[in-house]
Amino acid sequence: MAKLYHFPLSPFCRKLRLVLAEKRIEVELSEERYWEQDPDFMRRNPAGKVPVLKLDGMTMSESTAIVEYLEEAYPEPALLPRGAPARFEARRIAAWFDDKFHHEVTSKLLYERVHKKVMGQGYPDSKNIKAGAQRIKYHLDYMAWLLDQRRWLAGDQMSIADFAAAAHLSALDYISDVDWNRHEVVKDWYAKIKSRPAFRSILADQVPGFPPPPHYADLDF
Amino acid sequence: MAKLYHFPLSPFCRKLRLVLAEKRIEVELSEERYWEQDPDFMRRNPAGKVPVLKLDGMTMSESTAIVEYLEEAYPEPALLPRGAPARFEARRIAAWFDDKFHHEVTSKLLYERVHKKVMGQGYPDSKNIKAGAQRIKYHLDYMAWLLDQRRWLAGDQMSIADFAAAAHLSALDYISDVDWNRHEVVKDWYAKIKSRPAFRSILADQVPGFPPPPHYADLDF
Repeated sequence: MAKLYHFPLSPFCRKLRLVLAEKRIEVELSEERYWEQDPDFMRRNPAGKVPVLKLDGMTMSESTAIVEYLEEAYPEPALLPRGAPARFEARRIAAWFDDKFHHEVTSKLLYERVHKKVMGQGYPDSKNIKAGAQRIKYHLDYMAWLLDQRRWLAGDQMSIADFAAAAHLSALDYISDVDWNRHEVVKDWYAKIKSRPAFRSILADQVPGFPPPPHYADLDF
Repeated sequence: MAKLYHFPLSPFCRKLRLVLAEKRIEVELSEERYWEQDPDFMRRNPAGKVPVLKLDGMTMSESTAIVEYLEEAYPEPALLPRGAPARFEARRIAAWFDDKFHHEVTSKLLYERVHKKVMGQGYPDSKNIKAGAQRIKYHLDYMAWLLDQRRWLAGDQMSIADFAAAAHLSALDYISDVDWNRHEVVKDWYAKIKSRPAFRSILADQVPGFPPPPHYADLDF
């Protein structure tokens, strides 16, 4: 069976878990304290980070490259639309979340509040938390602007853009850092994606020392 | 004609310039002082960074998504190999350079030495420069390990992996931060890619206040 080395709140691991589940590829999850740089883990993955996916005889790293592989090797259901311009838009928005949103929001909130404690790297930096909490508003506004024109983030079809975005937002929702009341259209989008069977494993995540808030797993949040 | 908003030493812009030139897509270059967040530029690209490519009626950002678009819309010559596993490997290595190498080396050397001065953000941090200079050795060793087994970084065919790597290394070579004598096989690889017509515009780059060393544009370096 396929095996995914992951860390529960990592948005890049969550994106892969969602894509694997949508494509009905069964995978055994193995939690990896990757920051301890265990020699066995480093042998599997010289980049020293999660996710690492063992599948089809390969040991794969780099979540975006893995998603492209899954889309090519397991084409059903398609998570990229048809036509080069539409595919570009889905990839652009996925990259927006994995790069810009990650840099401006996820790393400022999640990594300060949770990772620092779990990894024993000291206390959260309140300047970073303030910056992340400020910046997420801009991103939620951008999502609302997109969703006013489209059913899903990249168009009328659900795509990797939605899974990348939901991976980051669900990890931040675990620590109550998403204001779902800011835009009804964003809340509606999250309710739709949250209710998919692929989301179940993510809603069941538990990080010791950080219990999720009651609304986290509630489909009627 | 297509138009690329870029900054000369940006590795992400260089990767696109190489891919566009290999595919013989003519493009007008427009230098963009993106850190000044000019309102016109921000309208073209809400992510506020380079590269931004105007092509086929679209205004595109996110270099990896753009490369995938070019590969789909302009398939000749192919810069991804055939077969999902080989394509994964090319994408994985491209991501290695754009993510890990960028974080550990490019941002520590190029951004400290050049960008800080150009952007008026003060003096280089010698701790970062030391860390980047140390870390690039590991990456050159990894490249040598790959190139001992393969003609190009991701296999026997030149691919986006080579252009991503060459984009970062050429930008660092502009400030003499690459020790080409560390591995003959890496030097041979760079000599091969440097002599391609697609590389000419990159070898002609000039950043005011930072003249390149004589070996930078020399094909027999």
